[in-house]
Amino acid sequence: MELLDRHSLDALLVTNGTNRRYLTGFTAEDHAPDESSGVVLVTASSMTLFTSPTNEPWARAEVNDGVEVVPATRPWTTGVAAECLARGYRKIGFEDGSTNVRDHAGLTRELSPALELVPVGDGVDRLRAIKRPAELAAIESALRMTDLAFERASARLTVAMTERDLAEIVRAELRDAGSDGEAFPTIVASGPNAARPHHVPADRAIGEGEPVIIDMGARANGYCGDLTRTVWLGQPGAQLVTMYRLVADAHAAAVSVVRAGVAARAVDRAARDVFDAAGMGAHVIHSVGHGLGLRVHESPSIGQASLDTLQPGNVITIEPGLYVSGWGGVRIEDVVLVRDDGATNLTGAARHAP
Amino acid sequence: MELLDRHSLDALLVTNGTNRRYLTGFTAEDHAPDESSGVVLVTASSMTLFTSPTNEPWARAEVNDGVEVVPATRPWTTGVAAECLARGYRKIGFEDGSTNVRDHAGLTRELSPALELVPVGDGVDRLRAIKRPAELAAIESALRMTDLAFERASARLTVAMTERDLAEIVRAELRDAGSDGEAFPTIVASGPNAARPHHVPADRAIGEGEPVIIDMGARANGYCGDLTRTVWLGQPGAQLVTMYRLVADAHAAAVSVVRAGVAARAVDRAARDVFDAAGMGAHVIHSVGHGLGLRVHESPSIGQASLDTLQPGNVITIEPGLYVSGWGGVRIEDVVLVRDDGATNLTGAARHAP
Repeated sequence: MELLDRHSLDALLVTNGTNRRYLTGFTAEDHAPDESSGVVLVTASSMTLFTSPTNEPWARAEVNDGVEVVPATRPWTTGVAAECLARGYRKIGFEDGSTNVRDHAGLTRELSPALELVPVGDGVDRLRAIKRPAELAAIESALRMTDLAFERASARLTVAMTERDLAEIVRAELRDAGSDGEAFPTIVASGPNAARPHHVPADRAIGEGEPVIIDMGARANGYCGDLTRTVWLGQPGAQLVTMYRLVADAHAAAVSVVRAGVAARAVDRAARDVFDAAGMGAHVIHSVGHGLGLRVHESPSIGQASLDTLQPGNVITIEPGLYVSGWGGVRIEDVVLVRDDGATNLTGAARHAP
Repeated sequence: MELLDRHSLDALLVTNGTNRRYLTGFTAEDHAPDESSGVVLVTASSMTLFTSPTNEPWARAEVNDGVEVVPATRPWTTGVAAECLARGYRKIGFEDGSTNVRDHAGLTRELSPALELVPVGDGVDRLRAIKRPAELAAIESALRMTDLAFERASARLTVAMTERDLAEIVRAELRDAGSDGEAFPTIVASGPNAARPHHVPADRAIGEGEPVIIDMGARANGYCGDLTRTVWLGQPGAQLVTMYRLVADAHAAAVSVVRAGVAARAVDRAARDVFDAAGMGAHVIHSVGHGLGLRVHESPSIGQASLDTLQPGNVITIEPGLYVSGWGGVRIEDVVLVRDDGATNLTGAARHAP
């Protein structure tokens, strides 16, 4: 409603697949950026979901009360434009970050000049940044499964197991913990491979004393868990001990500043300050966190360029890391809930300090 | 090169994530439609991949010879625009089906009027429709894993097993067959649920004699398998026998017309003709197939509105189905290679005729 008011819109056209689910309850994912599973037309008093005839029974079975399901034309822009014209709209908003140029051109062709199309940016994404109680419960449930799967999978780590083997164990444990599977491709990065934050698990055998970064998350009822632990076999090497303690300090520093009203970039800054003070600032290559919910990465952004201010009900990751080319890396990630007076750590997975 | 020539372009900007992988070899997936893992600038003599600093080491390790990797700015449009201006380009093409309005506006702001942006539609997607020998081998490998997983999973089906249980078994067998997992969420739809082509496996217990549609595919080295079988426990009911034979006939009819030079819609027509002749046309609710490769759905399109002509080297699914609300449905899907003189069925999974 606030978005409709701000831009004086008759309706808002939602093309973002996650926002579609958030608003209507229809759980279909988009096959690809250019293969949508549906769009939603939202007005002050109605919500209409346009989806393929193939998806229609599924959608009807899932949508929230009050959501009308309409079979989409091909391309969908034709049917949506006809509906907008039939309803006499003059001005509708659209999500410019998730509407492609081709669809926008199609809409413009059919609607102009009778109707004006106004970009609303990530306005709907921002609604998702503040979690309702049921959403918070869903995230906590995904995190409990993630914790459990981590405990079980890490207990099964043995010498000479490959990264790929361990990732496979993580996936199986995520399933066995009751989830719908991975929220994102599990990362297992050992030794020098741990210098790459987004390493793809390889056939490398894991050795004693070296860092093993495990970054994993369960998905349950659409909501994502996210957890990173750095572990090792046997005794940790001296550099690993030093680096681990530094990352743990940076993590604690970042969590300590989390509170509603604080600039998100101050959280990133708190972690960087710890690294800079230790002369390790050059080994920081990603921001300290991100929002978490229906997507693994969502609003708010927790980096040095973020313009977001933390709000009560934000759920964010805190995941500082250090990466040294040729040696490896360390990352520690928990998920925290932003409160008026601080942060609640929602992650339960144990850490074994070196 | 052909695309550059046709539009007199200095360069082509590739934003589609699958095309990025196809052209550069970098396997990262996009996190979301509005969260790209990189874009590619292609000229007659060079290929430049812009990706986040976090992804840079991964990208360097994977890209094909001759691909330059450059760290992306945030937003990526700024860095790409600067590079285009520095290189003195006047006209570049972009993929309007996978470039969002926000990024396009950002590029226009930085480049206009020095440089013209020309939409090239799905020109790069169309390159992918004709499979090279290595790609064909990768698809065949994914199909072998899919066949094997189907045989093993369907052999484990027992009375009162739920759809969700069977889907879980399929997933495990896909992994055990050596794949990287599912190419798409496995569908297990039993009894009345089989009337929904895109049913999500539920806690419904599978009964004797009713249709059980299993739609599944392995992903291996990025390439997708795709297979649908309709099976049953015990003796099939009379309606299932009738419907199954009809769908099998439609399948055979569709495969029989596949050959290079044939209009794709004629393949769809051949299946519909069988259903129409039996008075079942109203129960056809999706097109008969689609291209298959790095994506589960890609060019060419095999439906009644398709304007594509089959070409040698196309790999397509043939998957006619009938759906009766309240009763269930039947679908049979094989993957075929288009040859000059016909089709080669690439699917090996057995069918047990009723």
